Amino acid sequence: MRRTSRDIRTANRYQVLRQVIAASPTSRQELAAATGLSLATVATLVGELLDLGMVTEVGFEDSAGGRPRGLLAVHASGGALIGVDLAETYVRVELFDLALTVLARAEEGVRPGESRPEQVVDLVATAVRSVVARAGVEGARVLGVGVSMPGQVDRDTGVCAYAPNWDWHDVPLLGLLADRVDHPLHLDNPLRACAVAELWSGAARGHEDAVVVNLGTGVGAGLVLGGGVHRGVSDSAGEWGHTTLVLDGRPCHCGGHGCVETYTGAPGIMLNLREVSPDSPLLHPGDQTATIDALARAVRAGDPVAVRVLGDTARYLAAGVGGLINLFNPEVVVLSSWVAAAFGEPLLDAVRAAVPRHALPRPLAATRIVLSPVPTDPVCLGAATFALEGALRSAGKGARHRAPAGPRARPRPLPQGPGQV
Amino acid sequence: MRRTSRDIRTANRYQVLRQVIAASPTSRQELAAATGLSLATVATLVGELLDLGMVTEVGFEDSAGGRPRGLLAVHASGGALIGVDLAETYVRVELFDLALTVLARAEEGVRPGESRPEQVVDLVATAVRSVVARAGVEGARVLGVGVSMPGQVDRDTGVCAYAPNWDWHDVPLLGLLADRVDHPLHLDNPLRACAVAELWSGAARGHEDAVVVNLGTGVGAGLVLGGGVHRGVSDSAGEWGHTTLVLDGRPCHCGGHGCVETYTGAPGIMLNLREVSPDSPLLHPGDQTATIDALARAVRAGDPVAVRVLGDTARYLAAGVGGLINLFNPEVVVLSSWVAAAFGEPLLDAVRAAVPRHALPRPLAATRIVLSPVPTDPVCLGAATFALEGALRSAGKGARHRAPAGPRARPRPLPQGPGQV
Ligand SMILES: [Zn+2]
Ligand SMILES: [Zn+2]
Repeated sequence: MRRTSRDIRTANRYQVLRQVIAASPTSRQELAAATGLSLATVATLVGELLDLGMVTEVGFEDSAGGRPRGLLAVHASGGALIGVDLAETYVRVELFDLALTVLARAEEGVRPGESRPEQVVDLVATAVRSVVARAGVEGARVLGVGVSMPGQVDRDTGVCAYAPNWDWHDVPLLGLLADRVDHPLHLDNPLRACAVAELWSGAARGHEDAVVVNLGTGVGAGLVLGGGVHRGVSDSAGEWGHTTLVLDGRPCHCGGHGCVETYTGAPGIMLNLREVSPDSPLLHPGDQTATIDALARAVRAGDPVAVRVLGDTARYLAAGVGGLINLFNPEVVVLSSWVAAAFGEPLLDAVRAAVPRHALPRPLAATRIVLSPVPTDPVCLGAATFALEGALRSAGKGARHRAPAGPRARPRPLPQGPGQV
Repeated sequence: MRRTSRDIRTANRYQVLRQVIAASPTSRQELAAATGLSLATVATLVGELLDLGMVTEVGFEDSAGGRPRGLLAVHASGGALIGVDLAETYVRVELFDLALTVLARAEEGVRPGESRPEQVVDLVATAVRSVVARAGVEGARVLGVGVSMPGQVDRDTGVCAYAPNWDWHDVPLLGLLADRVDHPLHLDNPLRACAVAELWSGAARGHEDAVVVNLGTGVGAGLVLGGGVHRGVSDSAGEWGHTTLVLDGRPCHCGGHGCVETYTGAPGIMLNLREVSPDSPLLHPGDQTATIDALARAVRAGDPVAVRVLGDTARYLAAGVGGLINLFNPEVVVLSSWVAAAFGEPLLDAVRAAVPRHALPRPLAATRIVLSPVPTDPVCLGAATFALEGALRSAGKGARHRAPAGPRARPRPLPQGPGQV
């Protein structure tokens, strides 16, 4: 797991492109200042990104008393990226341009009993074809497809070792997809997807250390440490949902007791509701989404049961988040995924109010707690970003054997198709 | 908090020297293989370390069919490092050579009521003079003095904002020390000291991701992530002792409840003992060290109360450690500091047995849990290592302005003084 010189070069390439996307138009000098890299390194990396058609020169600005500086912008139509979010009840696919703007979206329901690997792969293949067609993008311009799969996935082998949502065991997911999807494929899990989404275009952008707390059916923490996603030695870091919060507390599907997830994941919040009001009309047994939506609406309407349940949930969550702040001393904690999005500001406010009882003053003072600002499905965006990172990585492998720079390759822009969102 | 090119260069310099210390004699080729750096980078860094007199050429080995390879070793007597461990009841000072071997040691008791900053600084100054004299080292050869102070310390300003052990508030510790100690000074806390000790010469050496669990009066986790110590945005990461383990559990001095520290720090273990046997003769009220020592001896003798208390403590600890494994997916978890050392193997065995109930199978399978193998006080060693890192950092600053390499500076070896340990 050593970081090699090439790893560092790849990380620097990510950092420069990320900054160009964030701040287009920008100059090499500004990029050097923002990234801490030397101007020479930035110039080399920008050259590579120009060669790849991911960045484009857009003119000059006068610098005080000096020669004019070349301005750079992301070449939004220089390629397309596809993100696939495999959730429990749906397959969502989004196509992005290189500015990470959504151009087309497709969603297919996964009905109970229709979640065998071939069936899911079929849905994905259909949805991928659909977004490519609707965005009016040539297939060859798709740089890659990132796939987010909950559970234990091995991004190197492309195998899903275990997926609790569909009870998959050792499914060679990328192999099956490769037979049906003709683009480079990248597999990872939603924890990492949400973390890279925040890193590339959300609340972690420009930060070294951030924790992205995913609140969905499952609960986890995507870790941005030292400006990159922390994966751990066997690529399974971030399973914060199975941290003991209440010793000998509620049983968890992991076999443990009192895990954070059993109090703050959607099924855990349903239990919180049952404890307050066993017969609440807000409770939709067997339907997490409907229950969370009903609770969130009721909170906004001031319903006392819903407000109480939100308070209890926030109290559990704050105890856990306080521990993360003490442990990592991050710049930002982001509340992400669909449960956080459903509750929104009232959850954020309640967590912010309760965290000081659990976090130490010094790390607390250095941390902001925010809702994810990512305007689209962060899992799709993050999965698409894996495809972007993959393209930047493989570009690096080729670069060693490339001929000396000739005229810059200028790919044709993406046609503006009818499927735009 | 951006990593600049110079940060990366400094980190690479640490990595190469660490590997030389670990594997002397070694070749540039072996160093490149072990660190993942290019041979050219290794050659440059080795050149710097030769210039600094920290590394020395010790001959050649034949490589199969090629020209002989130069062999390098750490130049143990090329400088001395001093580590200072400021604990609650003592000031311990150790002097190390560059191979990180202890050459001399001094300890001064801190009596109750004699822990004012000037008094402690006086003890430190005396002990530093003592180890320098006993090791027979010229003062000019001391590369630096690292000071480990529990509590909230700011290593940039050298101020101790708050120290619970002596109730210090906003003490400009490094400023006070600088008036009495004529060597470069470096301040940090014991969590980070124990982490760098494991990284430079313990169980974290050669690993990218390790968690060093400190079990003393306080409890914390030194984090080695990506091959370096994770400090967090305001230099206060690692306060794992204040993670909620038992919601609404035992009150903690931090103001929270049910923190890990209240069950697994020395005072918490005393409470565990009181819960099992309120009148146990093992309990030395007001004396943590005596109680922990008595418990540890009784465990080895098979005393049922002590065995029960060890089991309870290990159960609490395992719940916390399981969470760390799930979150970080580290290669190794090290149990360090004096409580871990006092209990030793029985504690390790009990934790190893209980962790699988709390850690997920995949990260658990990738992790080893070990006792710290550091043969000396890890806090002193870690503090000394801060001085070494400081010397390597400032060398980097000078390197830009250094004259082209002339003949290698060959400092005189350290005299072998009478104070050797
Ligand atoms: Zn669990
Ligand atoms: Zn506490």
